[in-house]
Amino acid sequence: MLQEIKQQPEALARTLREEGPKVATLGRFLAARDIRLIVLVARGSSDNAALFGRYLLEITSHVPVSLAAPSVHTLYNAKLDMRNALVVGVSQSGEGTDINLVLENAKKAGACTLGITNEPRSAMARLVHEVLLIRAGKERSVAATKTYTGQLLMFYLLAAALQQGRGLEKLRQLPELASRCLELEPVVHSLVERYRFMNHCLVVGRGLVYANVYELAIKLMETCYVVSERFSSADFLHGPVAMIEADFPVIVFAPPGKTFNDMRRLTQQLRKLRAETLVISSETAILKQATRTLRIPVKIDEFLAPIPYIIPGQLFAAMLAGVKGLCPDRPRSLQKVTKTL
Amino acid sequence: MLQEIKQQPEALARTLREEGPKVATLGRFLAARDIRLIVLVARGSSDNAALFGRYLLEITSHVPVSLAAPSVHTLYNAKLDMRNALVVGVSQSGEGTDINLVLENAKKAGACTLGITNEPRSAMARLVHEVLLIRAGKERSVAATKTYTGQLLMFYLLAAALQQGRGLEKLRQLPELASRCLELEPVVHSLVERYRFMNHCLVVGRGLVYANVYELAIKLMETCYVVSERFSSADFLHGPVAMIEADFPVIVFAPPGKTFNDMRRLTQQLRKLRAETLVISSETAILKQATRTLRIPVKIDEFLAPIPYIIPGQLFAAMLAGVKGLCPDRPRSLQKVTKTL
Repeated sequence: MLQEIKQQPEALARTLREEGPKVATLGRFLAARDIRLIVLVARGSSDNAALFGRYLLEITSHVPVSLAAPSVHTLYNAKLDMRNALVVGVSQSGEGTDINLVLENAKKAGACTLGITNEPRSAMARLVHEVLLIRAGKERSVAATKTYTGQLLMFYLLAAALQQGRGLEKLRQLPELASRCLELEPVVHSLVERYRFMNHCLVVGRGLVYANVYELAIKLMETCYVVSERFSSADFLHGPVAMIEADFPVIVFAPPGKTFNDMRRLTQQLRKLRAETLVISSETAILKQATRTLRIPVKIDEFLAPIPYIIPGQLFAAMLAGVKGLCPDRPRSLQKVTKTL
Repeated sequence: MLQEIKQQPEALARTLREEGPKVATLGRFLAARDIRLIVLVARGSSDNAALFGRYLLEITSHVPVSLAAPSVHTLYNAKLDMRNALVVGVSQSGEGTDINLVLENAKKAGACTLGITNEPRSAMARLVHEVLLIRAGKERSVAATKTYTGQLLMFYLLAAALQQGRGLEKLRQLPELASRCLELEPVVHSLVERYRFMNHCLVVGRGLVYANVYELAIKLMETCYVVSERFSSADFLHGPVAMIEADFPVIVFAPPGKTFNDMRRLTQQLRKLRAETLVISSETAILKQATRTLRIPVKIDEFLAPIPYIIPGQLFAAMLAGVKGLCPDRPRSLQKVTKTL
């Protein structure tokens, strides 16, 4: 897992180089259709990447996005009106039975289909109209890391395709930003021992970085067996805040940007409740309120923040698993490809 | 909370009587528009009700549904293409600032808007094209119960309106089914002491009853301060299952129907992992595999199951709060109306 985390700058650079040129042709393909709805279909970490896609695509393309509930299709056989819809399947292996079934039905119903996968010869790659290939190389750890950031990158490419290539140029910064965040490895290393006996925690964040909240929580559940709640700061205040008491561990994603003031207010409130906070941010204004910090070494445009900001989270999960005596590559009860219907 | 839980059969009957006749006019209003997308906007328990709406409406009306991310609108000011969209706001108080802002923007962008609320004189009721009013009476407990089931009922009415009244007749059974589930009160009473020192748990379920998974988890978080994970059985197998070890408490919603076999397999797997299960079901086939059970006294059509099945969950949360020495009506850090943007 740690090795694959460190491969991310290179995987991102390779994927940009090899898939970037597809943006123009994909853009023409989509422009020829009148896309009025985007449906994203995924499970597990890929579904977390889809959550990012939902925010990015709605904000940049103005097309409404729906995160599909696969069981509506696989168990209840609903036939949805898919005229003018782009249906995007996201799966590391491209072999998720349920995801592929939804794509197949959507295609029959007249939708445009796109696959985001790491495997060019997968069932998904064969069945969709267009493919965006994550060039991350084989992922061996059960815990997805480089394919998660690869999937986020694919959503940037799709967003660029839907906007005549706008935003593509900025993405070239991503491999370097990912590298800078990997510099946090020794900081994380000296930090994780503190959490050796942490059994539960809460992860919060909002907006574009909200997907990372889900992703870090799932990593902590599968590699460290920590019961990890995940909430947007807004939903959190509608109920779950009641469970916060002194010493409750809360991990906060707080990149600068539109969600920053919200996260700062929340961190203040958590401080009053005497919760223990671990804040991931480049900003001193919030870091100084935290119990512990992971300081991002560079101020990052909030549109680019999700990929670099998950990296200290990945390092944290991988190293905490080590301190807890667990092997993050082979969590109990799990295999690399999960098949559900 | 316990009082309001017990008012549900009467509240459901009253709401059906007084709002049921609206189905025909609402149906005509919607038929006159070419609705091709439904967007649901909510926070907290209302968002859990919206999750039910997503399944019910997609399965019965064939119109794709999107659960809105309010911050896309409130923080990032996205202007989505809302032609042919029906945007439904769900809020007990009708005063959720963010929800109302999304409704207002949608209306300006040409969408049809519908409000589901308990308050006829609220800001939401005034701003939308059409209103479905939950006739639950004032809800005093911070923990929503009768307004949650009232909101579920409104989604049944909306589904009927979108299908020329189909399915409306069946709903008359709901008040009686809710009454039958209230009979479980003494069973729950004798059961809850076992969970006095439970600090975390997992709630699982799938499909139409998936909303109850979220709703029970939020009730346990806000009234009992139990760290409660919530997953569909499919997503659960894509990672979080790794955290399950001996004695891990898992609450399973398993009504008969399309999701039943899945839940039975999952309960078997949990048994092998020596987890402790509490199964809510009418079916002996799954109840006999459970550590503890809440037997629903009547076999319920899966389309009607969500309202009666949440009732033992509500009783469980309210009574567990009592055993833990907490007041479920006034959770710490919370007020009845939460305003977020």
